[in-house]
Amino acid sequence: MNAATTLPPRGLQMRSLVKPDGDLELALHSVEVPAPKPTEVVVRIEAAPINPSDIGLLFGAADVDGTLVTSGSGAQAKASARVPERLMRAMAGRVGQALPCGNEGAGTVVAAGDSATAQALLGRTVALLGGAMYAQYRTIAEDQCLLLPPGTKAAEGASCFVNPLTALGMVETMRREHHKALVHTAAASNLGQMLNRICIADGVPLVNIVRKPDQAALLRDAGAKYVCDSSSPSFLSDLTQALTATGATIAFDATGGGKLAGQILGCMEAALLSQAKEYSRYGTSTHKQVYLYGGLDPGPTEFNRNFGMAWGIGGWLLMPFLQRIGPHAAQALKQRVANELKTTFASHYSREISLAEALQRDVILGYCKRATGEKYLINPSRGL
Amino acid sequence: MNAATTLPPRGLQMRSLVKPDGDLELALHSVEVPAPKPTEVVVRIEAAPINPSDIGLLFGAADVDGTLVTSGSGAQAKASARVPERLMRAMAGRVGQALPCGNEGAGTVVAAGDSATAQALLGRTVALLGGAMYAQYRTIAEDQCLLLPPGTKAAEGASCFVNPLTALGMVETMRREHHKALVHTAAASNLGQMLNRICIADGVPLVNIVRKPDQAALLRDAGAKYVCDSSSPSFLSDLTQALTATGATIAFDATGGGKLAGQILGCMEAALLSQAKEYSRYGTSTHKQVYLYGGLDPGPTEFNRNFGMAWGIGGWLLMPFLQRIGPHAAQALKQRVANELKTTFASHYSREISLAEALQRDVILGYCKRATGEKYLINPSRGL
Repeated sequence: MNAATTLPPRGLQMRSLVKPDGDLELALHSVEVPAPKPTEVVVRIEAAPINPSDIGLLFGAADVDGTLVTSGSGAQAKASARVPERLMRAMAGRVGQALPCGNEGAGTVVAAGDSATAQALLGRTVALLGGAMYAQYRTIAEDQCLLLPPGTKAAEGASCFVNPLTALGMVETMRREHHKALVHTAAASNLGQMLNRICIADGVPLVNIVRKPDQAALLRDAGAKYVCDSSSPSFLSDLTQALTATGATIAFDATGGGKLAGQILGCMEAALLSQAKEYSRYGTSTHKQVYLYGGLDPGPTEFNRNFGMAWGIGGWLLMPFLQRIGPHAAQALKQRVANELKTTFASHYSREISLAEALQRDVILGYCKRATGEKYLINPSRGL
Repeated sequence: MNAATTLPPRGLQMRSLVKPDGDLELALHSVEVPAPKPTEVVVRIEAAPINPSDIGLLFGAADVDGTLVTSGSGAQAKASARVPERLMRAMAGRVGQALPCGNEGAGTVVAAGDSATAQALLGRTVALLGGAMYAQYRTIAEDQCLLLPPGTKAAEGASCFVNPLTALGMVETMRREHHKALVHTAAASNLGQMLNRICIADGVPLVNIVRKPDQAALLRDAGAKYVCDSSSPSFLSDLTQALTATGATIAFDATGGGKLAGQILGCMEAALLSQAKEYSRYGTSTHKQVYLYGGLDPGPTEFNRNFGMAWGIGGWLLMPFLQRIGPHAAQALKQRVANELKTTFASHYSREISLAEALQRDVILGYCKRATGEKYLINPSRGL
């Protein structure tokens, strides 16, 4: 093993623990930095985004708005919140385990095992997927590193996987399930802007659903042709028109709760009916699908079944999707991300914070809001 | 063409018409009885059940309870009801068309075309699927007739298709989608009792969900092992236990509206979690599926997403299912129905009515209630 810098024996790692009494606690744990095996490297993490999926692990079902308490500073910083009793059943599997957080990140390889591949990474900037990224150091298999093109900063490569592969996965799912156009909600998000760029590049008609006029303007400025604002009184007819124009019969919904998924199915059916040649009591025979891939609205999902019988609503998650398509197809998607990292897949962050800052009250309330355009980046190599 | 009896030139046929102003009208139309082509027969319909799917065509989105008006008697009997304005969009495709009703039925072949197959059916009792069965006569292709075994009455063969093939289709769908046990709601229905008999015969674990204690008793008396009463305070834990015992991860729900579909998914996830070895923030990776095949509860469908990300809810309909599996597999299911018509697939009717009686106020309110165990049979050959 060679080390580009002196490798410290221990480092800080953020962990989330749900206690049996319903208290959820976030803290920085001092953990051993394992020396790399022959085919492993040690990465000093310099950038790790806080994605909605990370917040799910960080705070679980805890009531952040109502019960957040923070204490300490630096390496002693702590945050805690209460999990409502009725939601503890969903937390049962993680009670008593302090779980490391952070799905993806990027940084510099500071130590490497003896394999040629590992050695070649020494001193280079790499992107990583694999959990436990909110940490000063991460020992990881060489083949889980995506070598970033020369001149790429860690912050530019930190969001290489979750958003880019999710956006590409939506387009890929659309193709594999034989739809010809797609609908996306919360479309002004980082992910939504990325999807808009992919669809423009690939010539895939995309119906963007946003919640505010300025979000609509942002997407139109980025070249989006179909943008429907759900706060507009003409939303349902605007959406039906866009669905008629594009023929979109699959949607990816980040909100999860509320009536939006059902409204999309209803408008898809109305668009299909407006072109139907004969009446069927069971609605059109064209399958209409909405995948819920997020839960920005944590409330119940509700729909009126006014869209015939050929429909489905279901969960959609990146990892099972990648497993379904197999390593070869997944690698092709990853390579595209690396190739277009500074264009199609560029991410923007509203704030860069240290590990300790990520446990401060105002910061937590900020990133838990999940406001469109607000994305936080943790830099674990920054001073606490 | 030969006729076993004198074929009248015209016959009565029940039709449902939605007018542009939102009035839905049911009436008996005098229509021509087409002479059979070489490969056709004319059947005198003697029994046609009123299935929930028929009520969907008969009354569409009309408010029967609140606005039903009946008039006339005999061939002049009429019934009408108002379609609420907000539901007229869903009716758009059928406005102005007087649609013949009745999905399935049985009767005697009274005239036949010249083909050997058609001639062989003359005078025999056959079961039919294909619409327009609430009629005195039905001219139909010979290959749409299922010849009933000798000694089978029309009433015994009238429900050969919709319920039997739906029940068999559920078990077949379970197998094709790689589940090992199944859940059924409104399980004391005619269809549910049939499904219970199939599952016992085939050794498929079945979790029956009913709404009343006497329905639970009925199913237990019929040999059902797992019966959960949704009116019991221990329903959710009873259901979770039954799901744990059976490993059922697919359900067919006849209610459609309300919270039941989501509760089933939540209990499936709880059953899986109770046996999970490690925690995943996204829930278990086992796909859980609920198909809504009916709408006994016409209200909105509502669920809390407390069952991870590996789930789906969707519509399920017999005809597209049969098309998906292809004619060979579909024929195998039909043959099983014919073989077990007086045992597994026996139907029971609470009341036999004439075409004109089917348009009387008290009768309509009776069959529109869709009460468990209450099934009506129209006999169009009875005097009006």
